[in-house]
Amino acid sequence: MSADAINIEQKLALFQDHWNPRIIGELNGQHIKLAKLQGEFVWHSHEHEDEAFFVLHGSLTMEFRDRSVKVREGEMIIVPRGVEHRPVANAECHVMLFEPTSTVNTGSAGGDLTRESLERL
Amino acid sequence: MSADAINIEQKLALFQDHWNPRIIGELNGQHIKLAKLQGEFVWHSHEHEDEAFFVLHGSLTMEFRDRSVKVREGEMIIVPRGVEHRPVANAECHVMLFEPTSTVNTGSAGGDLTRESLERL
Repeated sequence: MSADAINIEQKLALFQDHWNPRIIGELNGQHIKLAKLQGEFVWHSHEHEDEAFFVLHGSLTMEFRDRSVKVREGEMIIVPRGVEHRPVANAECHVMLFEPTSTVNTGSAGGDLTRESLERL
Repeated sequence: MSADAINIEQKLALFQDHWNPRIIGELNGQHIKLAKLQGEFVWHSHEHEDEAFFVLHGSLTMEFRDRSVKVREGEMIIVPRGVEHRPVANAECHVMLFEPTSTVNTGSAGGDLTRESLERL
């Protein structure tokens, strides 16, 4: 038994839509996902799940209720469980996400941007 | 409550030694680590822990007992629990690791390269 290499740029080229994460790997009950972001997401939090965003291309602003944090290409931010946040990307931004397999993108907020069943690339 | 951005290149500049991962983040019982690799590591496996290697700079070869897999810059490999593996880097290679907080770098193999207590950057 062994494993294959996963090419991130090749995976990113397989989809174009925004705010619709794809699963590229799973380990220890966590998913590794890729997503393309543009515009404003919804305010939400995840009651039981911490969530990491690693910016591969572009930049995003992670808005919290008390301040906003710019996250540039090559930077990561870990949003602790229970903390309300809203990612905003003025231009298209590509991220790698690391979060539990149970995580729903909009957390407890729900709404039109909710993606319950994610494609696996 | 909020969170800060973590700049990966800045963290990589803080250490030079090989095969000595540093912790840069923690979420959901997992650590995100950075490591610089050069040369041959030891054959080992992790009984209970899957392990992801994301190559940031350079390339590595992940040797398995049945074959070897080249993992280039921008590629990731997920080594399932229980699978014997040995990372080899002919030239210096920088990786981001995702694995449970319980993971010891040499798994069940032990030896001089074991790092039990990792620095947190």
